[in-house]
Amino acid sequence: MELNEMLEQINELYNSRHIADVKKLLNDLNPADIAQLLEAVDEERRRIFFFRLLTKENAAETFVEFDFDTQEKLIHSFSDAELKEVLDEIYVDDAADIIEEMPATVVKRILKNTDSETREAINSILKYPEDSAGSIMTPEFVDLKKDMTVEDAFKRIRRTGVDKETIYTCYVTDASRHLIGVTTVKELLLSDYDDIIEDFMETNVISINTLDDREKASTELSRYDFLAMPVVDMENRLVGIITVDDAIDVLQEENTEDIQKMAAIVPTDTPYLKTGVFETWKKRIPWLLLLMVSATITSQILTSFESKLAALPVLVAFIPMLMDTGGNSGGQASVTIIRSLSLGEIKMGDIFRVVWKEIRVALVCGVSLAVVCFAKLMLFDKPVLGNSEITLSVALVICLTIVAEIVCAKIIGCTLPIFAKRLGFDPAVMASPFITTIVDAISLLVYFGLASLILSI
Amino acid sequence: MELNEMLEQINELYNSRHIADVKKLLNDLNPADIAQLLEAVDEERRRIFFFRLLTKENAAETFVEFDFDTQEKLIHSFSDAELKEVLDEIYVDDAADIIEEMPATVVKRILKNTDSETREAINSILKYPEDSAGSIMTPEFVDLKKDMTVEDAFKRIRRTGVDKETIYTCYVTDASRHLIGVTTVKELLLSDYDDIIEDFMETNVISINTLDDREKASTELSRYDFLAMPVVDMENRLVGIITVDDAIDVLQEENTEDIQKMAAIVPTDTPYLKTGVFETWKKRIPWLLLLMVSATITSQILTSFESKLAALPVLVAFIPMLMDTGGNSGGQASVTIIRSLSLGEIKMGDIFRVVWKEIRVALVCGVSLAVVCFAKLMLFDKPVLGNSEITLSVALVICLTIVAEIVCAKIIGCTLPIFAKRLGFDPAVMASPFITTIVDAISLLVYFGLASLILSI
Repeated sequence: MELNEMLEQINELYNSRHIADVKKLLNDLNPADIAQLLEAVDEERRRIFFFRLLTKENAAETFVEFDFDTQEKLIHSFSDAELKEVLDEIYVDDAADIIEEMPATVVKRILKNTDSETREAINSILKYPEDSAGSIMTPEFVDLKKDMTVEDAFKRIRRTGVDKETIYTCYVTDASRHLIGVTTVKELLLSDYDDIIEDFMETNVISINTLDDREKASTELSRYDFLAMPVVDMENRLVGIITVDDAIDVLQEENTEDIQKMAAIVPTDTPYLKTGVFETWKKRIPWLLLLMVSATITSQILTSFESKLAALPVLVAFIPMLMDTGGNSGGQASVTIIRSLSLGEIKMGDIFRVVWKEIRVALVCGVSLAVVCFAKLMLFDKPVLGNSEITLSVALVICLTIVAEIVCAKIIGCTLPIFAKRLGFDPAVMASPFITTIVDAISLLVYFGLASLILSI
Repeated sequence: MELNEMLEQINELYNSRHIADVKKLLNDLNPADIAQLLEAVDEERRRIFFFRLLTKENAAETFVEFDFDTQEKLIHSFSDAELKEVLDEIYVDDAADIIEEMPATVVKRILKNTDSETREAINSILKYPEDSAGSIMTPEFVDLKKDMTVEDAFKRIRRTGVDKETIYTCYVTDASRHLIGVTTVKELLLSDYDDIIEDFMETNVISINTLDDREKASTELSRYDFLAMPVVDMENRLVGIITVDDAIDVLQEENTEDIQKMAAIVPTDTPYLKTGVFETWKKRIPWLLLLMVSATITSQILTSFESKLAALPVLVAFIPMLMDTGGNSGGQASVTIIRSLSLGEIKMGDIFRVVWKEIRVALVCGVSLAVVCFAKLMLFDKPVLGNSEITLSVALVICLTIVAEIVCAKIIGCTLPIFAKRLGFDPAVMASPFITTIVDAISLLVYFGLASLILSI
């Protein structure tokens, strides 16, 4: 059923006071869908009324799915008892996420209504730097000891599992909480009850550090097809895990960020329609300004060649084509390299192979484009469009410029992202708009250089 | 340890004939790492030798991680018995993936060496269209009946689970294989042994159809935080599941595709360094050609205004700046909308809200850029750079063009992707390079229109 239909139905039921039906309809849905539905309810009071119809478990899971605005409004309307009920049910990493986005007064109320153990866990997550593995991990995992039997393990899982976000990967730790092994519920289920964990646990445990980048953690999790990635501190003690659903969210957020940077936008994780006009302006204006101001260079180049242009005005007509072709070629190279860097397909050490490949691709692309352009100029633009100023030499200047600028564009496009990464910047900012600005200037210099040489103007 | 160090160590051990140590070192690694290491082994024969040192389970899991080239070479060097051993251990969906990429002779050998049941399963996956949910699902899942007890369920999992890619989500089907409920191993572990599945299973089961897009399947899986997404046929019979690790791979591939399309590249899923020069050329040249040829329009516009440019040559100097600013502004809008569409944040019905928002953002961006540009022209370009042709009226023409072109660029940038989606095309092709070409032409017309009006040339 579509969201709008469902919204209509639920509002009708509410208006005709069939509250039990509303309750059933809501609680039958998946929390992600309940959240979407309730966010579409216009009236604040009605939304709260609906929320209160949810079962304890659904309420908590739905609450986590809301956006931060809705969460804040709901918290304001909660009694302390209600707030405590929701907080008791949600996982510590989700609670930490929410707290990070709330104003100080709300944070105070949240922390007041959690028990001291949870409060401590939340605080320990909050102290990790933004975008670190520590900041997205949950301290709730199943830990076993190596001398346990399978039966002991199941007992422990049954006793403590209800509070854990995932129970399927179990971590084996020693007395000082060092991570020494890992096993899975599947392994446990397929073993005999009196088998000892130590005998079949995997001892080559892959883990990452609390201070590693959260993107690295997520990429590694995906590389090894894990359901959870263990996170250890500097002393190699297990302090938490990152679950696969959070890893997917991180990967998607990082992809969005990369795409925004490539399009010369300052990254933001607020959904488009929820961002205000001023907010959107703030994300877009810095790069527009910078790139506009850098275009002073192209203006200066054109001004200095003004007399040549006056002598042969037809040259002006092809400036946009040349600049776009250069920009597009450079953009193709830079975006390919940026993506490959982010997927870990190429490394700093590959730079010479990359450049060598791009030079060859550029030559093939440049020559094929130049041939087509030459044919178009001589067989279409000149005779059909009647542009009589196009001579063989003019066409030659234009086509040679295409080859030269594409080679320059591809070399610049593939090297800048790698250098950016080397210097510790995000390669994604070295994408099309930035490359275009540089390639523009080079293309113009090549163009006028060749024009002076071949056309002797 | 770094890959290169490990490679060195393993080659040394091999050369000094410490084969048992090589075997231990290899088998202690995770299959994803073994695959990376073996692919870095230069000599073909040595790689096969190393591969044969792997345990049966590691061999199969490593084989799946290899790229298709390596897989093909290995298959050629396998005896039939070896091939059968590997094939018996790998999951059906992985086997189908491999078969899709192999030449006919290899496919024949593979199918000859699988038992008839597996062969049938592979064939049923292969018949689904590329990029459909059916094409990436695995038919190996745990199915339960509603009247089973928890104890029965565990017996069934223990008996059949070893062959299943994931056992953690269990699907409840009726006699005609309709999907009627779902539960998890966690739920089962936390229930009593004599509880009946029907009493606690989730009956509001979210599933997708075999013919749905694989990207939709993966996005939904992530939205609901599932470990597997059930796939049903047209009669709502459960035919397979998509596991979370495959869903992540699909999301990453789709992201790469979107990014490539945005950069005017025909999408490819071959890693950069493994793509040949000619292959890369083939992916890049179509858009370059199309965009170069469409630039004929800008050439024509400039040619038709040649006399005006001759009267006031300073106007030429700002053409690159105006075109880049327009292109960048349009690109920001289009890329934002393309990403929001792909994340499901906006829909066709939001088009008026989107356009209204972009118009306001464009006005704020346009006015702020114009103000800065005006100041730069009058306070820097004219007095400092000595460009005496810049008059108040010329600056006015340039700055008004900025405002007008940004508004046009943002409107075009936000509407084209939405229309593309409506017409069933991928919105991602409506990104910067495409928008730039259109915005270039409009900007030039606005520029010369304003110049005629204000400067009366």
